[in-house]
Amino acid sequence: MSHPTNALDDVVHQRARLGILAVLAEAQRADFNYLRETLTLTDGNLSRHLQVLEDAGCVKITKVFEGKRPRTWISATKLGREAFAREIAALRELVARHDGI
Amino acid sequence: MSHPTNALDDVVHQRARLGILAVLAEAQRADFNYLRETLTLTDGNLSRHLQVLEDAGCVKITKVFEGKRPRTWISATKLGREAFAREIAALRELVARHDGI
Repeated sequence: MSHPTNALDDVVHQRARLGILAVLAEAQRADFNYLRETLTLTDGNLSRHLQVLEDAGCVKITKVFEGKRPRTWISATKLGREAFAREIAALRELVARHDGI
Repeated sequence: MSHPTNALDDVVHQRARLGILAVLAEAQRADFNYLRETLTLTDGNLSRHLQVLEDAGCVKITKVFEGKRPRTWISATKLGREAFAREIAALRELVARHDGI
């Protein structure tokens, strides 16, 4: 017997990382400051979770200069979008099972 | 602007702990071995997560003897059921936002 939570992947289920991938599912790319403010994370926390997602091949991080101002853009990879879609599917099953709670 | 993932509580969102509370939402109580097998956790892992939930006031752990056999029963507290309901509500919002993904 398999419980729906067994289908959850810790890499993308963790709250901050789920938030990052959720934002990136709705946008082509997002910059570091936007993610930090939208998800109410600290710089260090966001950096750490982005690193986990990058190591897992889920996001691409690009540092550019716009004029003299450095800017960090983050986008989801194909793998990252697929992992997020699987997570949403597993959560949908869990939510349906506890509907009307 | 608040993102739905900001409403998630790490205590109950973590995969194994979410699984424990999900099982307990469907049963009056569950024993340790049943939780371990249903959620495919190790003894140590399940113990650790139960401790976090007990410390947060979300579950009650009762050790009894049935004949000469020790048995550990786990049940959700009122606080635990409420925390699980809030988590499911936040996940429902997240899933709805990414419907059709």
